[in-house]
Amino acid sequence: MRLYDIESPDQIRSLTIPQLNALAEDIRHFLIHSISKTGGHLSSNLGIVETTIAMHYVFHGPQDKMIFDVGHQAYVHKILTGRSTLFPTLRQLDGLSGFQKRKESVYDCWEAGHSSTSLSAALGYAAARDILHQDYNVVALIGDGAITSGMSMEALNDIGAQKRKMIIIFNDNNMSISKNHGGMEKRITSIRSSRVYRNVKQDVKGSLDHNKFGTETLKFMTAFRDRLKKGLIDAPLFEEFNLDYMGPVNGHNIAELIKVFETAKEHDGPIVVHVRTKKGKGYSFAEQDTVGKWHGVSPFNIATGQSLMKLPPNEKSWSQIISDALIQLAKKDPKIVAITPAMAQGSKLMKFAKMFPDRFFDCGIAEQHAITMACGMSLGGLHPFVSVYSSFLQRAYDQMNHDLARMNLPVVVGIDRAGLVGDDGETHQGVFDIAMLRSIPNLILSQPKDAKEAYDLIYTAFTSGKPFCIRYPRGQAMVPETITFDSIPIGSWTKKQFGLHPKGIIIAYGPDVERIEHTVQENEYEMIVVNARFFKPIDEHLLTSLLNLNLPIYVFETDVTIGGLSSAILEFQNQYKNKIHILGISDHFVEHGSIRALRKKEHIDLESLFKEIDAHE
Amino acid sequence: MRLYDIESPDQIRSLTIPQLNALAEDIRHFLIHSISKTGGHLSSNLGIVETTIAMHYVFHGPQDKMIFDVGHQAYVHKILTGRSTLFPTLRQLDGLSGFQKRKESVYDCWEAGHSSTSLSAALGYAAARDILHQDYNVVALIGDGAITSGMSMEALNDIGAQKRKMIIIFNDNNMSISKNHGGMEKRITSIRSSRVYRNVKQDVKGSLDHNKFGTETLKFMTAFRDRLKKGLIDAPLFEEFNLDYMGPVNGHNIAELIKVFETAKEHDGPIVVHVRTKKGKGYSFAEQDTVGKWHGVSPFNIATGQSLMKLPPNEKSWSQIISDALIQLAKKDPKIVAITPAMAQGSKLMKFAKMFPDRFFDCGIAEQHAITMACGMSLGGLHPFVSVYSSFLQRAYDQMNHDLARMNLPVVVGIDRAGLVGDDGETHQGVFDIAMLRSIPNLILSQPKDAKEAYDLIYTAFTSGKPFCIRYPRGQAMVPETITFDSIPIGSWTKKQFGLHPKGIIIAYGPDVERIEHTVQENEYEMIVVNARFFKPIDEHLLTSLLNLNLPIYVFETDVTIGGLSSAILEFQNQYKNKIHILGISDHFVEHGSIRALRKKEHIDLESLFKEIDAHE
Repeated sequence: MRLYDIESPDQIRSLTIPQLNALAEDIRHFLIHSISKTGGHLSSNLGIVETTIAMHYVFHGPQDKMIFDVGHQAYVHKILTGRSTLFPTLRQLDGLSGFQKRKESVYDCWEAGHSSTSLSAALGYAAARDILHQDYNVVALIGDGAITSGMSMEALNDIGAQKRKMIIIFNDNNMSISKNHGGMEKRITSIRSSRVYRNVKQDVKGSLDHNKFGTETLKFMTAFRDRLKKGLIDAPLFEEFNLDYMGPVNGHNIAELIKVFETAKEHDGPIVVHVRTKKGKGYSFAEQDTVGKWHGVSPFNIATGQSLMKLPPNEKSWSQIISDALIQLAKKDPKIVAITPAMAQGSKLMKFAKMFPDRFFDCGIAEQHAITMACGMSLGGLHPFVSVYSSFLQRAYDQMNHDLARMNLPVVVGIDRAGLVGDDGETHQGVFDIAMLRSIPNLILSQPKDAKEAYDLIYTAFTSGKPFCIRYPRGQAMVPETITFDSIPIGSWTKKQFGLHPKGIIIAYGPDVERIEHTVQENEYEMIVVNARFFKPIDEHLLTSLLNLNLPIYVFETDVTIGGLSSAILEFQNQYKNKIHILGISDHFVEHGSIRALRKKEHIDLESLFKEIDAHE
Repeated sequence: MRLYDIESPDQIRSLTIPQLNALAEDIRHFLIHSISKTGGHLSSNLGIVETTIAMHYVFHGPQDKMIFDVGHQAYVHKILTGRSTLFPTLRQLDGLSGFQKRKESVYDCWEAGHSSTSLSAALGYAAARDILHQDYNVVALIGDGAITSGMSMEALNDIGAQKRKMIIIFNDNNMSISKNHGGMEKRITSIRSSRVYRNVKQDVKGSLDHNKFGTETLKFMTAFRDRLKKGLIDAPLFEEFNLDYMGPVNGHNIAELIKVFETAKEHDGPIVVHVRTKKGKGYSFAEQDTVGKWHGVSPFNIATGQSLMKLPPNEKSWSQIISDALIQLAKKDPKIVAITPAMAQGSKLMKFAKMFPDRFFDCGIAEQHAITMACGMSLGGLHPFVSVYSSFLQRAYDQMNHDLARMNLPVVVGIDRAGLVGDDGETHQGVFDIAMLRSIPNLILSQPKDAKEAYDLIYTAFTSGKPFCIRYPRGQAMVPETITFDSIPIGSWTKKQFGLHPKGIIIAYGPDVERIEHTVQENEYEMIVVNARFFKPIDEHLLTSLLNLNLPIYVFETDVTIGGLSSAILEFQNQYKNKIHILGISDHFVEHGSIRALRKKEHIDLESLFKEIDAHE
């Protein structure tokens, strides 16, 4: 059977092991060729070809629920559920999603994009099944990077308490997006070469072909499980969460995987199946990758491994622009440290890590911890820079509010991949951060229009003594020959007037400012173009003068408008023209006291309201 | 020495063990009497009197950094650092804070209010110390409930990787705010009665009085530590995170605690000291409390344990109102389940738990997991209700966005303690949730003005098939004699007109609506009073008719105004009068595609901008 013939995973259950192995090779070949044309997530999918085949061999979707953590490694699942012909449209508008998607297939029972949600989801399904007296399997596949994230550990803790029947396939490829050096990682390594693994290997060899899971196999499996159970003493990692454990198993041996999954299926209560895989397996460039270059890729030449996307020599990615400036500053200021939650490669911090190994912190997929640790570092006298993707910063909303902003600490937060990120879709669009952060007191929130302004903003940030966020998009920008630093007044906007008698005002931010200026000039519009490089605070002085011109104002907001820059302008305009009288809590953290006392202090008591009404009647 | 004489913790280092024990009794007596008058956090502070004394005996603030997780158990620390005379002002406006506060004392090196930040903070301090070549101790005290939260586990993982010298005092009182039944809890229980603990007890008996930590003691301690190290085999919990461990130790034996802390101080690298304490120790009512009633208390009668705050017979707390309605609905709908992240008592869910034990889930301090598990339950066919305090929901921003709203799942979220909470101060004010959630597509966000509207909203929520948030404040409201349910059109506001010729419009929400109506009537204002019971969607139809009246509008917002209800009104008003032209991403999640294709689709490409400009020039 060729993979284009697969319309349903039920078909693969009639195949022999050699046929399944051939299918695996076929899929691997297809993935490399298809992704080389469209781009996409390569390494993680190559790593779990056999695991996914074995999952669909043993478990029966859509009744059985198969949840892929993050979801970017669900390509094989998509192929096995009849979606291979759609791969030329991968991650394109109206094309195949790069993640699990319920509207694409009944076999997609969960959606994600952010890491570490699969265990909570699986427990939710298992609880629902039990309460509704239904009967199906719940299987979550999760990698070693994702499992050490806080959310996963909250779920593991609850799974160990609730003790419901479910299967956690722990995909141990010894690498998260960047290398995860966490304490738990050391324990996982020690399990890898344990006695249990070698026993398993001998047990399953050749045994699968001779029977079709009759009494003999079950007997064998029981013995096998008992032996594995003894192995628990060697692998206490999941024991701490009160979970049973099997493994480790060779994640590229389909026969072995089917055996183990069948055993796990028989198990009552939650069980962890530890599967060892090689990320990028079958494509030498990806196999040799140790830093995650082949995690998500642009179209590439299969023979050379070279990307087909080339930046012009005078352009650099925004991540690189920020990282280069950070290095320049760190050379002069030994107190500057850089923190990344598992995104060293994506955020272009590898060079910083090499130059300043003692001042570089990759804390794993742990955005919450990253922000709060930076707060501690700041109080301890360091000058921390935290680099986080916009959409992942959502995980650290509370830490940005309760820890960083409330204590008003001088930490610089680089919000990478801000705005539309495109291919990865709605789980990754960095379009919420302005609205999310703007209502938090003390925070400064900015975005540069070009590389020079990026240098100046990061320089200003480190000298501000305030919590300072700089957002920058995916993509690249022109860079000047040398990096220079100038201070920017916090909250200041700039404007350029085109024509003597402007007929309108465009307020924009980021790289669009220059593109707009260019279009205005080319088309001889008479306009004022404003670079709103701060979302908080905004430039009230400039805005007042603009409002006084009584010209049409166009706010070009490339992020969500609700609560965003346009709301900031409307809020100010209202205050200025005094159209709608607003009583409410102004932009600060409210301290303790009785609610009555606080209401009086904040002018949100009824007396204040009617005083305001009396003044305007 | 009496506790009022303490101006600095240095003073206690000259005391003998019997004197320290007397001081402990003195402090305990003081706490009970003082809190009985002001209210505050009682049980947790009574539990760590001796531990805090021993900490200040062994560690020297402000050089050494002592971080109290959550911070509500820092009362003893406040007393020992010279703040006892301020306790009559506890949690009152301009009075003593109920948490650690940097501006109160140089001994307060960290601030919190939310759980589980202490370990990240401590690691940050330790890293700063090492990088800046300084020399001090970093000590974090954290309870068993807080340590199983995701954020703590992210930090433990990184602490095990970085291996910096720091001390984690694990305060094991076998109870978080509600009982935590997590998988890790079972392991902790098994450690409690282990051999190690009994050995420690014998070792330290009587040895402290005879020496002043000379060579003899050090020798003893080394042997002691070696013995403890052997105990690791019995207590592997923290081993998984690559951390050394000592304990458990009797947390009410000052001599023993001092010994162990001295040993830990000598230890290189991170070490966990497991301290067993009794929450509420020294006050029988609090000691016997198993559900957290004595965690945070109002003023009470010491002899009877009765609260001095009495609700009128026809009033109930908002939590109770919601919980009563939930029970009524759950009786008829067996698919309704209730989830709380460790707030069963505060959210008044104990009765639900008793009536429907299989449908009640206390998942520990794990807001992220709580929301995402509810999503899984919803997909599995259940009708979940998640009860979370507004300020703690901040921990689950990403789960509300990425999981709940993006998948558009019918989960009902009860946002308890919304708005000002008063005494607990700025870490707990529930004033951000409207602004935080309003920019997330698909979510419905509402607040009832009274108990009847609360019943109707929760009924409407469960029938809506949408992610539906109902926020309600701290405090209480009148309740009708019986609970009845009527459907409310989603997004609808109501209005009442007072007088024939209204001179203004007041837009308010929650219990203030009736208070305002009352004041308007009493003072014979001619006004329209609007109950804006939905923040999202808003009632555009009613708002349009109000704007058409051209009357002054007063928005009475008892939460942050930036991004809140008033912004929603301004955004709509602007759209309606078309004053500022806004191009931006409207209220939906943006799917995948190239950025260029998405910009075109979302009308945030330059072509759309200039088309808009051309149309208005």
